[in-house]
Amino acid sequence: MNINTLIRKIYLPLPLPTETDSRSDCRRILDTLAEQGFDSVQIPLAVRQQLYPLLPQSGYRVTASLCFDGTFWQLTGLEAGDTTSALYGLATDLGSTSVAMELVDLSSGQVLASASSYQKQIAHGEDILNRIFYAKDQPEHLQELQQEAVDTLEELMDQLTAASGIDVRNCACMTLAGNTTMTHFLLGLDAFCVFSSPYAVHVDTPGFFFAKEIGLTLHGLLFCFPSRANYLGGDIISGMIATELYKKESISAFFDIGTNGELVIGNRDFLICGAGAAGPALEGGSVTTGMRASDGAIDSIRLSGDDFSYTTIGEKPPIGICGSGITDLMAELFLHGIVDIRGQFVENSSPHLIYKEKAAGSANKVPEGITYAPGLVFYQKDIHEFLRTKAAAYTMMAVLMEQTGITAEDISDYYMAGAFGAHINKHSAVSIGMYPDVTYDRIHTVGNTSLKGARMLLLDRALLDDLHTILEKMEYVQLGSVGNFLEIMEAASYLPHIDIERFPSVKKEILGA
Amino acid sequence: MNINTLIRKIYLPLPLPTETDSRSDCRRILDTLAEQGFDSVQIPLAVRQQLYPLLPQSGYRVTASLCFDGTFWQLTGLEAGDTTSALYGLATDLGSTSVAMELVDLSSGQVLASASSYQKQIAHGEDILNRIFYAKDQPEHLQELQQEAVDTLEELMDQLTAASGIDVRNCACMTLAGNTTMTHFLLGLDAFCVFSSPYAVHVDTPGFFFAKEIGLTLHGLLFCFPSRANYLGGDIISGMIATELYKKESISAFFDIGTNGELVIGNRDFLICGAGAAGPALEGGSVTTGMRASDGAIDSIRLSGDDFSYTTIGEKPPIGICGSGITDLMAELFLHGIVDIRGQFVENSSPHLIYKEKAAGSANKVPEGITYAPGLVFYQKDIHEFLRTKAAAYTMMAVLMEQTGITAEDISDYYMAGAFGAHINKHSAVSIGMYPDVTYDRIHTVGNTSLKGARMLLLDRALLDDLHTILEKMEYVQLGSVGNFLEIMEAASYLPHIDIERFPSVKKEILGA
Repeated sequence: MNINTLIRKIYLPLPLPTETDSRSDCRRILDTLAEQGFDSVQIPLAVRQQLYPLLPQSGYRVTASLCFDGTFWQLTGLEAGDTTSALYGLATDLGSTSVAMELVDLSSGQVLASASSYQKQIAHGEDILNRIFYAKDQPEHLQELQQEAVDTLEELMDQLTAASGIDVRNCACMTLAGNTTMTHFLLGLDAFCVFSSPYAVHVDTPGFFFAKEIGLTLHGLLFCFPSRANYLGGDIISGMIATELYKKESISAFFDIGTNGELVIGNRDFLICGAGAAGPALEGGSVTTGMRASDGAIDSIRLSGDDFSYTTIGEKPPIGICGSGITDLMAELFLHGIVDIRGQFVENSSPHLIYKEKAAGSANKVPEGITYAPGLVFYQKDIHEFLRTKAAAYTMMAVLMEQTGITAEDISDYYMAGAFGAHINKHSAVSIGMYPDVTYDRIHTVGNTSLKGARMLLLDRALLDDLHTILEKMEYVQLGSVGNFLEIMEAASYLPHIDIERFPSVKKEILGA
Repeated sequence: MNINTLIRKIYLPLPLPTETDSRSDCRRILDTLAEQGFDSVQIPLAVRQQLYPLLPQSGYRVTASLCFDGTFWQLTGLEAGDTTSALYGLATDLGSTSVAMELVDLSSGQVLASASSYQKQIAHGEDILNRIFYAKDQPEHLQELQQEAVDTLEELMDQLTAASGIDVRNCACMTLAGNTTMTHFLLGLDAFCVFSSPYAVHVDTPGFFFAKEIGLTLHGLLFCFPSRANYLGGDIISGMIATELYKKESISAFFDIGTNGELVIGNRDFLICGAGAAGPALEGGSVTTGMRASDGAIDSIRLSGDDFSYTTIGEKPPIGICGSGITDLMAELFLHGIVDIRGQFVENSSPHLIYKEKAAGSANKVPEGITYAPGLVFYQKDIHEFLRTKAAAYTMMAVLMEQTGITAEDISDYYMAGAFGAHINKHSAVSIGMYPDVTYDRIHTVGNTSLKGARMLLLDRALLDDLHTILEKMEYVQLGSVGNFLEIMEAASYLPHIDIERFPSVKKEILGA
């Protein structure tokens, strides 16, 4: 049995009350817990109200659910009999687009059921900024957003309960990681501070509190991962736990890229981090035929001779292209000479190019886009939109490395987190200069590290101390305020980069040398 | 300034956030509190939700209200500007009949306003037992009683706010002392355990919790005094704080007498306590013309020659007699030979006696009662009812003393607590054998010690430690289980006692020796 879990269940065969032992129910429980090594357990009012008639009905044989809140063990619930073998916790990644939740069996460490759904706040804007403005100085709107976040969590708890047959609302704790804005909204806090100078947020270490305080029907505690800065939220801190960057001797880079990108470079001695807007292109936004990674989205595409071949999500007829498909498409167009290093279409380089109507007196045909699948065109402006995004991503890394004097070669491992990183083709990403040009075994696709870190905390409460260590160590660089940021970004908006020497494998592939 | 108060207010001139100091609001507050010596302050969610827009609106000049919960300082509220001079707390005595509340200025220790009202639970029975049965295994009924207690507190908060012009709901803490049943009901706990063997109550140390957890609209914490046993509740423990019995070298007795009586004998080395039903007579119940101490109640009465003279509450025409009046009346009747040591009316001893209709063949007139005021008769059965009550009170003390080998002479001070004790005439109480026959300067009428102890805790948080000491020291004797209880009680139902030698001053007065 893992005794380091954040949640414990302790079977309490309580001595029956007699006139010579008329201790109160609470005292009887606390004394019995102390005998088993649990001192100073806190019993909240809701559990005190559970004591009767549970104790007599169970013959004073109960199991206590405990959650460690960093200082005390909180008694979050009592069950009749010995239920110690059923020890479950909930881990949640509260994203701005989608929310994922896992039911974890803490005895085995196994995930018993997973669920995810769209974040209901999308009703007030897919873009997080829309929501921030919607709620700004409008307490009723803020409350709406909070309720939508809570409703999303409720729906996921319902799904997990249905899937597992376990009433997950009896879990003693839900660990939850989200970015700073998502955490603010969940707690009913105005999030304009996240977006606006001087970026002093209201709350960065929400810690543990009872879920019912935010109207969530979980009986236990909610733990929200702390954030380090406005754009470096609990999801990234949880990613640190998941990747163990802060424990390693060698230097690693952690990159969570989506509409916004967050980057951490470091090892057990230092952690330097930055964040910035990347642009929606990587999530399929702002591109004419772009779409989220859902049914009918082209998620990978190859060019053989003149012909495109692709796969779609759900093997449905293609209706658009998602971030991993766009990355492939950009790489293929570049590697086949259909676009040049500036991202401009090259006239007559493909039979699939389509052209603008020639202006009177103009000598050349001007390519306007390329038909990459039936009825789906990737336009010149889409390329530039995407290049801005990939340049922003690359620039974050370049700037941070410059700040620390670290080179790409100093970095042993690259952890690419997030839904986007999970599906991207490494060769494509390197070819267009979005990922650094290192051997692919050093690039690790790590998936939803926000969720993973939340799950790991359930299994090891000592990670609460690690969170302190991480927060203390982390230095945050406001990337936008670095002097040559725009210059570096300009250089990075080429394919793969204005300085091809930075991408030797790409140079070799395109020049054949 | 008293810095030992349970509540503190700390003015926080927070450094303004800048891009180089973008600490979160919470961190900024915690750091500034730490600079002033307050470490590990807890900020509840409700206060986190207050941060914006309060901080910018106040120019980051706020005053934090803190309440010490025995482990941490809890930040219960923030106010704009420097409000440290307005430091208030609430002290409450939650009685089963009436509830008293005080608004205390913690800077000066003064009571700014007092309020009291009937306990709204009376709707479900004046007798506490009726309420216990009403709520037993009926969660909806229990909730009604809880709500009535909360409503009573709300009404008193309204009264204090109106009287003082201070919104008392902003107080960081209300300290509340009540008996075990009252505390159980307030917390929404079934109280049948208080009444029923083996007398293991559900909760004996409720401690601190947020008032809103029980639906009370106070923004701060509620502290409920701990209880020692089913019939030795927080009101008595608070009485220990008030009288400082547990600090003295000399031995004292503490007596809180009403429908139930609670008794503690001890000093700094030991505390022995007991409790028992006394009967409603001392509160004006069960006596034909008895009434509560309210307008029109005779509260003192004297006999000069054949004539009664009396005072009434509110100087209203007499409509009945309350406990202190009854005690006087009993003493006067006894001292004037109108009743004998068994409590029987003596034929022809007063012109005010009224007689039963003579049964056929009976030789003597049988006195049935005495008209002590126009239209008000004290009957023979009233006397016996009252004597049972006073005997019960005396017996508690006798039994406890016997248990410890302490005599009346060993006891330096007698503290008579409660509404009843506050108005009783010492000479009358000694004359009828309800108080021990000691010099009157050793009998202290201490009023509502439950309320006083609650107030003292507001002014000195170190008393939280004293509460632990008191609870550890206190030994509880189940008086009913003492072998010769009934025998002792029988002896005590005489006037003043079957053994007149125990009451030398009374013997001297009646025998003139």
